[in-house]
Formats: sequence, structure tokens, C-alpha cells
Amino acid sequence: MLGAVRDAGPKVRISVIDYTPEVLEEKFVENVEECFAYMDRESITWINVDGVSDSEIMRKLGQHFGMHPLVVEDIMSTDQRPKVEDYGNHLYIVVRMLRWNDKESALIDEQVSLLLGKGFVVSFQEEVEGDVFEPVRQRIRSAKGPIRKSGSDYLAYAILDAVVDAYFSVLEQVGDGIEDIEDRLTGDPSPAALRKLHAMKRELIFLRKAAWPLREVVGNLTRGASSLITPEAATYLRDVHDHTIQVADTVETYRDMLAGALDLHLSVVSNRMNEVIKFLTIIGTVFLPMTFVAGVFGMNFVNAVPEWDNPLGFGIVLALMLTVSIGLLAYFHRRKWI
Amino acid sequence: MLGAVRDAGPKVRISVIDYTPEVLEEKFVENVEECFAYMDRESITWINVDGVSDSEIMRKLGQHFGMHPLVVEDIMSTDQRPKVEDYGNHLYIVVRMLRWNDKESALIDEQVSLLLGKGFVVSFQEEVEGDVFEPVRQRIRSAKGPIRKSGSDYLAYAILDAVVDAYFSVLEQVGDGIEDIEDRLTGDPSPAALRKLHAMKRELIFLRKAAWPLREVVGNLTRGASSLITPEAATYLRDVHDHTIQVADTVETYRDMLAGALDLHLSVVSNRMNEVIKFLTIIGTVFLPMTFVAGVFGMNFVNAVPEWDNPLGFGIVLALMLTVSIGLLAYFHRRKWI
Amino acid sequence: MLGAVRDAGPKVRISVIDYTPEVLEEKFVENVEECFAYMDRESITWINVDGVSDSEIMRKLGQHFGMHPLVVEDIMSTDQRPKVEDYGNHLYIVVRMLRWNDKESALIDEQVSLLLGKGFVVSFQEEVEGDVFEPVRQRIRSAKGPIRKSGSDYLAYAILDAVVDAYFSVLEQVGDGIEDIEDRLTGDPSPAALRKLHAMKRELIFLRKAAWPLREVVGNLTRGASSLITPEAATYLRDVHDHTIQVADTVETYRDMLAGALDLHLSVVSNRMNEVIKFLTIIGTVFLPMTFVAGVFGMNFVNAVPEWDNPLGFGIVLALMLTVSIGLLAYFHRRKWI
Amino acid sequence: MLGAVRDAGPKVRISVIDYTPEVLEEKFVENVEECFAYMDRESITWINVDGVSDSEIMRKLGQHFGMHPLVVEDIMSTDQRPKVEDYGNHLYIVVRMLRWNDKESALIDEQVSLLLGKGFVVSFQEEVEGDVFEPVRQRIRSAKGPIRKSGSDYLAYAILDAVVDAYFSVLEQVGDGIEDIEDRLTGDPSPAALRKLHAMKRELIFLRKAAWPLREVVGNLTRGASSLITPEAATYLRDVHDHTIQVADTVETYRDMLAGALDLHLSVVSNRMNEVIKFLTIIGTVFLPMTFVAGVFGMNFVNAVPEWDNPLGFGIVLALMLTVSIGLLAYFHRRKWI
Amino acid sequence: MLGAVRDAGPKVRISVIDYTPEVLEEKFVENVEECFAYMDRESITWINVDGVSDSEIMRKLGQHFGMHPLVVEDIMSTDQRPKVEDYGNHLYIVVRMLRWNDKESALIDEQVSLLLGKGFVVSFQEEVEGDVFEPVRQRIRSAKGPIRKSGSDYLAYAILDAVVDAYFSVLEQVGDGIEDIEDRLTGDPSPAALRKLHAMKRELIFLRKAAWPLREVVGNLTRGASSLITPEAATYLRDVHDHTIQVADTVETYRDMLAGALDLHLSVVSNRMNEVIKFLTIIGTVFLPMTFVAGVFGMNFVNAVPEWDNPLGFGIVLALMLTVSIGLLAYFHRRKWI
Repeated sequence: MLGAVRDAGPKVRISVIDYTPEVLEEKFVENVEECFAYMDRESITWINVDGVSDSEIMRKLGQHFGMHPLVVEDIMSTDQRPKVEDYGNHLYIVVRMLRWNDKESALIDEQVSLLLGKGFVVSFQEEVEGDVFEPVRQRIRSAKGPIRKSGSDYLAYAILDAVVDAYFSVLEQVGDGIEDIEDRLTGDPSPAALRKLHAMKRELIFLRKAAWPLREVVGNLTRGASSLITPEAATYLRDVHDHTIQVADTVETYRDMLAGALDLHLSVVSNRMNEVIKFLTIIGTVFLPMTFVAGVFGMNFVNAVPEWDNPLGFGIVLALMLTVSIGLLAYFHRRKWI
Repeated sequence: MLGAVRDAGPKVRISVIDYTPEVLEEKFVENVEECFAYMDRESITWINVDGVSDSEIMRKLGQHFGMHPLVVEDIMSTDQRPKVEDYGNHLYIVVRMLRWNDKESALIDEQVSLLLGKGFVVSFQEEVEGDVFEPVRQRIRSAKGPIRKSGSDYLAYAILDAVVDAYFSVLEQVGDGIEDIEDRLTGDPSPAALRKLHAMKRELIFLRKAAWPLREVVGNLTRGASSLITPEAATYLRDVHDHTIQVADTVETYRDMLAGALDLHLSVVSNRMNEVIKFLTIIGTVFLPMTFVAGVFGMNFVNAVPEWDNPLGFGIVLALMLTVSIGLLAYFHRRKWI
Repeated sequence: MLGAVRDAGPKVRISVIDYTPEVLEEKFVENVEECFAYMDRESITWINVDGVSDSEIMRKLGQHFGMHPLVVEDIMSTDQRPKVEDYGNHLYIVVRMLRWNDKESALIDEQVSLLLGKGFVVSFQEEVEGDVFEPVRQRIRSAKGPIRKSGSDYLAYAILDAVVDAYFSVLEQVGDGIEDIEDRLTGDPSPAALRKLHAMKRELIFLRKAAWPLREVVGNLTRGASSLITPEAATYLRDVHDHTIQVADTVETYRDMLAGALDLHLSVVSNRMNEVIKFLTIIGTVFLPMTFVAGVFGMNFVNAVPEWDNPLGFGIVLALMLTVSIGLLAYFHRRKWI
Repeated sequence: MLGAVRDAGPKVRISVIDYTPEVLEEKFVENVEECFAYMDRESITWINVDGVSDSEIMRKLGQHFGMHPLVVEDIMSTDQRPKVEDYGNHLYIVVRMLRWNDKESALIDEQVSLLLGKGFVVSFQEEVEGDVFEPVRQRIRSAKGPIRKSGSDYLAYAILDAVVDAYFSVLEQVGDGIEDIEDRLTGDPSPAALRKLHAMKRELIFLRKAAWPLREVVGNLTRGASSLITPEAATYLRDVHDHTIQVADTVETYRDMLAGALDLHLSVVSNRMNEVIKFLTIIGTVFLPMTFVAGVFGMNFVNAVPEWDNPLGFGIVLALMLTVSIGLLAYFHRRKWI
Repeated sequence: MLGAVRDAGPKVRISVIDYTPEVLEEKFVENVEECFAYMDRESITWINVDGVSDSEIMRKLGQHFGMHPLVVEDIMSTDQRPKVEDYGNHLYIVVRMLRWNDKESALIDEQVSLLLGKGFVVSFQEEVEGDVFEPVRQRIRSAKGPIRKSGSDYLAYAILDAVVDAYFSVLEQVGDGIEDIEDRLTGDPSPAALRKLHAMKRELIFLRKAAWPLREVVGNLTRGASSLITPEAATYLRDVHDHTIQVADTVETYRDMLAGALDLHLSVVSNRMNEVIKFLTIIGTVFLPMTFVAGVFGMNFVNAVPEWDNPLGFGIVLALMLTVSIGLLAYFHRRKWI
């Protein structure tokens, strides 16, 4: 059995943090049944499950917590929309955890499911590696703030708060990117800037898809419909709610700014093309007529070309050319083209 | 009579699946009256009617189930908007069944009408061939999950769930297509990519037109207004409701992404045109003046062209040309055009 | 008096259809007072007034039916928005009747006002010629369906249903037009296709302006606020309501499709321009440098042009030209322009 | 005092219309206190104040009518948004009066504040010159319609109706303008048409900004919250409400049509540019290669140019040129460019 | 301690204005505890804290006023969205104070938090330097208007009013900028005008982000939910509410106008490019064929070129050229290109 779990190691990792105001216990468990023991104590238990693909473990957890089959299904299919469902003795909350991976300059989108019950929170993460909950763990370990003295609803708040805080980091990335792009656009409108603009647009689409329903979810939690959320925790959740509104607002603002940047880009490109074409036209206008005149006097008509042997002929022709050119340039200028 | 039905064979095909937790009966019926017998039993009966154009059969069914004349009309006119209507002893539900036909790379849009009553579901499909209900039939046959132990409301849920699941397949097609297009756009923005983008836009329009009202329909069913829907089935329908919201959300996301891809495409095309025109301008700027100089010295003025017989004349003129060209290229460079 | 009415003949035409389940009377009246006699009978009376510009007739009708002065004014000013107003003993309904005139390929927009009272419907049409009510008259004449056995509310339903059905014909026209345009766009994006696209956009604007408020109007009628609408008729009106929603939906879909077609058109035009400019650039790039080289060797420098008398000179120069051209074309190819 | 008022003459002008069903008195007052006498009578008094910049007069009026200091402030700051405020014994209504100045082809936007009390209406106009209330005055003078027999609420209705009627005149101007522009666009897409389109867009923006909140304002008045509005007047106000909805609708329709016209314009311009560039390309493609060939045979190589002295040489070269040109044109044609 | 505060001097500056209808005291305090003494008196106390980064001072203030830890956190994190929170004995209000810095032509965005309690207002400003509250202070000092005779709710109103008034100044800047840009666009569409347009767009985005939620905030305050707001102050707040609606409206109007200006700009650029290309095409069309003809007669075929020695040859050729040019220009004209 132990060996089997070890094999499943890379797929699922379960950790438990169990605390009272005075005592803290933190450990990884090899076997899912191990963590059930913590549930009966008078302490707050946070079970974190990294990886949701092992249906056997999910089945056991589902059975132990009395989860509806559809909830287990939802946890395992990792493209859920943020939502909250009240099953009486526990709340089921789904959110999207977005992180910015600096190394790969990529957005990581991961589903996090929370099961909030009396005295416990179970969190399910789509991926085994990485999350944004380290600040929460630190606050539990250091007993800073009200977290150790509060119930499981405060723990759920802290987790949701960490999720939303991570959205702000992503927004910061996008904000920096927009400034960078706008700077580039006043210089050289390269295709690379365009592609970056496009990439940021996609990140905003993801952020928006995560933030808008989350706003509703947290809004529902603050309305005190469930007895699992105390008024004290609801006050804190209202703060998270404000943050989700702020995220949604900023996403809209950034979308507007990106749209503005794209408009500016297209205008700059268009202006530049205009200038290049204008220049080509000037060159053509000046030299095509003059070349024609030169061609005329290069024709091989014996004794027929006028001024053939006039020593001043060459000068006269050049003067003629100059006149034509200056005339055309003057016309250009009058049309306000140069 | 039998011959008449056989003639109508390609137009209408009626199948019956009748089950209790213990027994399952499944067969095609030639004559519409055959299936009425199943209705009186204590079993769940699923009558599936493929093809709705035979008004005689529709009239008989309408009479037997006490359907309102407008309902029969709605079933037969196959461009209905998804809706649900409560007629007391039965619910009338219309949805759009969208499938992806891999062979023809085309979206198939078919109207499905459901009549949900106590102990029976009648489903009407617009086309005789093909549907997305095979998984439902498999679950009934294998008695897997709660389907055999549940009522006709669960069967209706299973059918609606299958319809919405098929939407996700179509969305997957579109999602793959968007990635494909975005890849192509960074390479060569061909008209073919444009046409594909346009085709996907249309598919999203269809999907949206099917999914948005379906969301309302399923939402209404979950609200427990009808006594035909038990709270247990309502819980399952809420899951379908979540899925329809997800479909609608993803459609919006994909629309945004397609709009972004089109913007990117237009910008890439515009940039490319810019580069080509710039190149033409450089070529013109370099060679038109030089050709003019060559023309000047090709004019047939006897004894008049300066440096006519200077052995270095040719070299001097070439140097002159070079100077002009370099000067113009330098001007270009200073304007940041090359 | 009769003469006066005859003069007004081309301006106003009044017809009466009076029916019970057994008896049907149908005739044109010369004098507006003639039709008042039908009102007192136990029959359903449909008075249809074609043309609303004769204020004398309108005044008499207004007086007879106890219409509010503002209602008379609304009937006569033919740019009303669809609406319904409850005046206790009668309902005043305004709708827009849209028809497709095949001969002139034009949309005809006409205001229809209905006065629905106990046992009578008065319909006012803006224009004397043409309407979409022929199917209603046929159903009355042939006594097909419930129309002869039902009250004036069913008659009003039948009229509204005919109005909405005509919207579908217009939508069909537009739908055909969109397919036609999309086909043309893949071939030759001519200005004519553009103008057609523009014309269909306008038709959709009219359709939308007619359909959206109509949706509300019919929705209000179904809610059973007025005692003039029986529950049976309300069920039928709900069907019309569904149809108005469908019209509104389809209008939005077609708008999306037209917007997509315009985007496609602009992209196709842009791509084509790109190709033409590319071709011009290639021609210029190949021949401008070669012409310059030819010009150089055409200069009249005695004994100064190198290879002047080398018999191979001509060949060498041609080889030089070829090299330059091939080099530039290779550069082009490397930049992925050809 | 009189002199002072005379000096303020161009700034403020006060007129009074006082009427009962039988008697009508109409005059200009020099001194604001003069008009207070009319208030105590059993008649309807309409005090019209042209010009709101004299704070002394405004203070006196405010005091006499018991207006809140903020109301006086609102009347004098003339960029208010349409609104209605209920101060118990009087209603304060702000609307925007839009007129079309034919002479200057310009839209005139003026603020009108109404104070509606028992037996009186005070109207404040931003500008001294011009208004749209002449039809109301005429109806009072001629005692046509119910105005002389009705209360001050009917008078307020008549004034609001006149304001909204003026919106329709402006809409007519814009409607005519759109038709004019669309006609021009099929001919010559000049910058003047563009500027006109832009100007009409701005007028619609103003109209919209005036009409949307007015719709709410009149909607509020019809709801019968204030005892100052009798049900009879409310019926009339509902008519104004319909008109404001119609204005708002038409504004949206015109915006759509202008957007469509702009799209059409851009497409026409783009098509035209396409054609011009195509023509340039054809010219270049035909003559650049031929000029090159001519240049080759113009080179001064003694005894080296082939066919130098062949009497048919000239003809052969011309045939060569023709072949090249026709080949290139054929290629063009195959690409569907000509 | 005093030294420590002096060090923090540039970071935090606290001023107190304490007034009754008769007495006014105004001073800067070095030590945060100093201002607590004013709270116990029967006067209105306005404590203004410039700079919110000193957590020690914030902690003391939070403790003294019984603020929720989240409120202190919100005050210190200066990117809050406008909101109002009711904590029973005090209201917590966050708004954005936008100012226009003429010197740097830049928008300054600063967070202002208000704590409104019985007899006091505490205002927290993000930055130490500058605010828009000078008019409020002047009114307190001069005892003009009702401010000295009213409670702390009126003071809060005056502060909010000052904030919203500053929005109008920014709007005025943008309005002037739009007129300037539209003027420039009819002349020369330079990139500088584009960049200014873009800058104004961003300012509107900020303004909108500040104004929309502020509208809700002030709307909430006027609804009289809190006993801290008297009906008299609510009347004044309704005025501020109107102003916020007006700001939001004007922002939308300006966005429309900027979008229109951008459309106009793009059209003007496009038209201009069109004209330049047309001119280039005309030049090319006239001179390329003529140069070709000249080239033909410049070829070195001995005795082969026709009209070689015809004294009229030169004239004939020139006539030929003229004919070709005029023909092409006529074709141009017929196509309505010139």
C-alpha cells in the first residue's frame, strides 16, 4: 500500500496543517486516511491536496466528507468556472489561482477547490507544484494576526485573499508591459511589440474570466447565508470582495489602455507609411520628368533635334529640367504634402 | 398500413427504451401506436423520434400526450429558440443539438424537443441520422450511475447533459483552430487563415445562439417550479446549468480571442505592406536619380556636354551618382525608415 | 357626403369582416358610419381602415369608440414606436408592419394600429395598398383553425402573428443576401457587394427598431393584465412572443455576420492591395537597377567608358544586370515577400 | 431701480402670461416684483425669465417661491443634466432645449428650468433670445385645445412637449444629412462629406445627452408621485414620455447608420486606392521592362550590340518588347488583377 | 519622540481645524495625540492627515477612533476603489482626488480617505503636498454659507463637493484638448496630435475609474441609511450626486468625441495617402510611356530606326508622346481619378 502511494507520489501530495491558538502541527501524509484523524479534534485543520487526478484518493475524501458525486467530479475536471455551493454542513468553493511565472514569462492558470466545514478547510490544487498560499502558512506558523485565534472561515478568507493578491501581481506585470509597449510605440512600432500587446490581451482575458465570477462568489459568501461564515469573517471577506471588484475594474482599464495602444500603433504605422509614400512620390515627381527630358535629347535624330549644336544647349536643357522639378515641388508644397 | 410506415422509413424512425432498475427493453417500432403501450407500465420510458416532418405521426403523438397544437407546431418547425414551457402534466423543452462533423469539417445544428412527463421522456430530433445521446444509452444499458434507479427527470437531465457536453467538443474544435490561426499569423498571413477565422466566428455565433437561451432554460428547470423535477434531479441540473454558463463564458472568451487574432492579422498585413513599400521607395530613391544622371550624359549635344572627352569623366560621373545615392540613403536612415 | 367620401377614395378605404362560427359577412363600406351597425351584434367585427390621413373619418371613429384624443393623434402620426396602452374598455396597440417588395427590392415599413375591444378589432394601416393580413382573412373565410370559434382577442393574435411572420420573410431575404455576399467576397470584392451589405445593414436596423419594442408589447399582452385577453389567447400570444424573441435574436446574429463579412471584405481588399504593391515592387526592383546600368553604358563619353570596344562588353554588362536582378530577387525571397 | 433694470435689459427679460378659461393677460414686466401679484389670483400664471445671470433677480425669485439655495444655484449654472426634484409645494424640472439654427447651420443648446407649483409655472431660459415655446403661447392665446381649461400641470406638459418636439426637428436635420452623405459617398468620397458626418455625430451626442435623462425625468412625472400632477396631465405626459423614447431610439438608429456610412466610406476609399495602385502597377509593369530593353540597345558598344546593323533589328526589338508586355499583362489577368 | 516626529516631518503632516459658529481654531500639530483633545469638545473638528505611510501614527489614530484593522490597511494602501463603509459610530469613505497640474501638464491621482463621526471628520491624503480643499477651508474661515452652523456631515459634504468640483476642472482640460485636436486635424494630422489624443484618452480612463464608483458612494450616502447624515446634509449630498452623474456622463460624451476624432483622423490620413498615391500614379502614367518612346528612338540601330533622317521626325515623335500622355490622362479622368 505504501509503495503504491509512493508511486503516485508525483501525482498527489497531501499536507496537513492543524492548529489551535497554542499548538501547531504541520506534516505531509503518505496515506489519505492519516489526515482524517485530525478532523475530530477541537482544532482547525487545513488539508491541502496537490494534484486531483487520483480518483481513488478523491473517492475516499469524497466519502469521508460526505461530498456529492458531482462535487468530486467538479474538483477533478479542472476547467470549472468559479462558484460557491452550499451543501449545509460544508461549502464548496471553486476559484482560479493565477500566478506569474517569471522564469518562463508565462501565466499559470490552476484550479483550486475549497471545502469549508466546521473546523476544517480542504483545498484541492490542480497541479502538484507551486501555489500562492505561502503567506497564509507563514501567518499560521508565526501566529501573526487573528488567524490562529479564528475559525476555519477565517482560514478560508486567508486562502481566498492570497488568491486575489496573486491577481494583483499579474496585473502589475500587465501594467508594466503596457507602459513598455507605449514607450516602444513612440519609437519603433516593431512586430515584437505587437505580439507582446497580443499576449497581454490574452492574459487579461484569463484574468477577467477568473475575476468576474470570483467577485460573485465572494459577494455571496459575505451575504451571511451560510452559518459556516461568522459575521467577523464576513467583514474580512468584504475586503476580498472589494479587491475582486478592483481587479475587475483594473482589467477593464487595462483593456481600454491596450485598445488605445493598438489604435495608436495603427495610426503610427499608417502615418509612417504615408510619409514613405510621400517621399517616393516626391522622388518620382522630380526625377521621372527630368529623365524624360534627358531621354528626348538622347534620341538619334540626325540634324533634327533643336539646339543640337548650340554650345549652350546643354545648359538650356538643364535649366528646363530644373524649372519643371521646382514647379512640381511647388505644386506639392501648395497641396501641403511637403 | 405497415407498407405506408415502411415508405416513411427514411423520414421518421421511432425507438423505445423502457427500463426499471431490474429490466431493460430496447427496440425500434414501426408503428407509432406500438410505443404507447409502454406508457402505462411502472417503468421509465424513453421514446426517441428521429425526424419530425411526418405530420400524421406528430398528430397521433400530440393527441396521445395531450400536447397543445402550438407545441406540435413548434416541434415541426425546426428553427425554434431554446425554451421550456410548463403544461402541468408535462414540460416541453426545446434545445439545439450542435455536433462537429469531422468528415466534412462542418457544424451540424439540429433541433431537439423533449417532452418530460411522469415516467416518460419523448425526444424529437430534427434529423433521422446521428445524435449525441449514445453515452446516455450506454449508461442505461450498463446500469452505471444512478440512471436506472432514478425517474424520468434524471433521464431528461442526462439528455440535456449530453447536449451540453457536445457543445464542449465544438468549443474544443474552435479552440484548436484559434491556436492554429495564431501560429499561422506569426508566419504567413494567408487568405486561407482569414477564411478559417471567419468560419470559426460563424460557429461561435451558432454556439452562442444555442447556449445563451439554454442557460435560461436549464436555470428555470433547477428552480423547482415544476413538480416533475425532484430536488435530486434539480441538483444535477444545476451542474448542467454551470456547464451552460461555462460554454457561454468560453464563447465570449473565444470571440475576444478571435477579435484579437483579427487585429493582429491586420496589423501584421499592414506592417508587411509598410516594409514592401519602404523597399520600393529605397530602390526608387537610389536608382531614379542615378538613371537621370546617366540620361543627362547620354544626351546628343555635340561639343556641349562638359567633360565630354575627359578620360576621367566617366569616373567623375559615377562618383557623382554614388554621392547622390548615399546622401538619399543617409536621409532615409535619419528619418528612421531603414 | 357620398361624393366627398368617393373623392377621399384613394386616401381611405374601409372594409368590414363580421363573423360568428356560422355566418360570415365581408364588404367594403363607403361611409364610416355604416360599419358601426356591426358593433352591436353578437358577432366578432374586424374593421380595417386603409389610410389614416383623413382627419374627419378619424374623428368620427375616435368619437364612436371613445378613443382618447392622443390615441387618434398617434394613429395619424405614422412614426410611432410599437406600444400597447390599456384604456379599460379597449386596448390600443401600435406595431410596425414590414414587408419585402420583391418588385422594387425594397423594404416597406408601415404603421399598423389596433384597437381591441369586446367583440371587435379595428386595424388602421398607414398605406392604402397592400398588407400581410391575407392569411388571416383566408383562415376566417375557410373557418380553418379556432379563429371563427374564438373571440376578438384571438383575432388580434392572428393579426399580430401575421405581422411577425412577415418579419421572418424579410429576415430570409437578408439571410440569402448575406450568403450571396460572402460568396462574392471570396471571389471579387466589388463595390456593388459593399453597397448590398450596406443596404442589408439598414434593413436590419429597421427590423430591429420594429422587433425589440414589439417583443415588449406582446410580452405585456401575455401577462394577462387586461380582461380583454383570455388565458387561451394569452397562450397563443406567448407563441408570438417567442417569435419576436427569435426575430430579435436572428437580427443580432445577422448583424454579427454582416460585421464579420465586412471585416473579411476589408481584409481581402487589404491582402489584394498588398499583393499588387508587392508585384509593383518586384518589377521596380528588377528593372530600375538594370535600366540604370543600361543608361550608364549609354553615356556619350568618348574613349572613356570601359570595355567600350570589347566585343564581349555587351555580354558582360548583361551578365552584370542579371546578377543584380537575381540578387535583389533573392533578398526579396529571404524577406518572405515572394 | 428702473434704470438699473433697463441696464440689465439685455441680460434678463421677464414676461408674464396669466389666464383663466375666460380672461388672458400677457405682458413684459420691468421689475421682478410686478409679477408676484399674479400669483395670488385664481388664474394660471406662466412667468418666463429669459437670462439667468442676474443673481439679484434670481435671489428675489428664490425667496418669493421658497426655493432651496441649491435650486437657485442649479438654475444659474447652465450645464445641468435633465432632472426633476420634488420640493413638496413645487417641482423643480431641468431640461435641455435644443434648436436648429438654420442661418448658421448650428445646434443651439440651452438650459430650461421649470418651477411647477399650484397655479403657476416659472420657466427660466439660459439665453435671452429665442425659444421653442411659441406654439404653446399660440395655443393659450387662441384657447385651442384643453390648455386654457386645465391647470398649471397641463401648462408644464405643453412646455415639455414643445421641447421634445424641437428634438424631432433636429433629428430631421440629421436624417436629411445622413441621406445626403450616403448619396455623396456613392459618388465622390470628399473630405467635406467626412466633416459633415463628423458634425452630425456630435449633434447626435448632444441630442442623446439631452434625451436619455429627459426620458427618466418625464417617466418620473407620469408615475403620479407628486400631487401637483393630476392623472389627466399624467396621461398627456405619458405621450411626451413615448416621444422621448422615440427620440432616444432614433438617435441610436442614426448612430448605427452613421457608423455604417463611415464604414462604407472607408471601404470606398480603400477600394479606390486599390484601383489607382493597380493602374500604377500595370503602367509600371508594361513600360519599365520595355524602357529597359530600349536602354540596352542604346548602349554605346561598338560592333558589339547584336543585330546592330540588321535592317530588321529595330522591328525585332519592338516585337520583343511587345511580347514581354503582353506576357506580364497576361500574368496580371491570370491573378485577377485586371 | 518629538525628534522622531520631526524626522517623519516630510512624510506626515497633521493639521486641525476646530470650529463652532462663533470660534475657529486652526493649527498644525507635531504629535498625533495633540489633536485628540479637540474631539471631546462640543465643536466640529476636522483633522487632516497628509501622508499615510507612517504606520505608527496610523496605528494610534486607528486605536483612538476604534477603526477596524482593515480600514487602517485600506487607508495606507493607496490604490483603493471609491467606497463607503458604515461602522456604526463612524462612516469610512474612500474617494480619488484628481487634480490637474498645470506646470507639468499632468493628472495627479491621490487617494483621500474620510472618517466621518459625530462632531468630527478625519481626512487622510496620500501625498503630503497639495489638495483641492482650500475653498472648504476658506468657507470655514470666512464663515460664509451654512458651513460653520452645520454639523460634521455638512463638512464631509463640503469636502466631497470640492473633490467632485476638481473633476470638472480636469474635464475642462480634456474638453479644451478635444477642440484643439479637432482643429488640428482639419489642418495637419501630425503624430503629436495623435499622442495628445491618446493622453486625453488615458485621463478620461482615470476620471471614469474615479467617478463611476464615487457616484455609487455618494448615492449611498444620500439614502439616509446612516444616522450620521442628517436630511439637510443629504439634500446637499444629492447635489454632489448629480454632479458625479454629470461627470460620468461627460466622460462618456468625451470618449465618444475622442473616438470620433480618431475616426476622422484616420479618414483624413487615408484620404491624404490616396491623393498622394494618385499624384504619383499620374506622374508615372504620363512620363513612363513618354520616356519609353524616347528610349526607343535612342537605340543605336544604324539605318534601321524609321524617320531617322526626316527633319520632322523629332516633331512627329514628340507629337506621338503628347498623344499617349493625353490619352492616358483622359482615361484617368473618365475613371474619376482626377
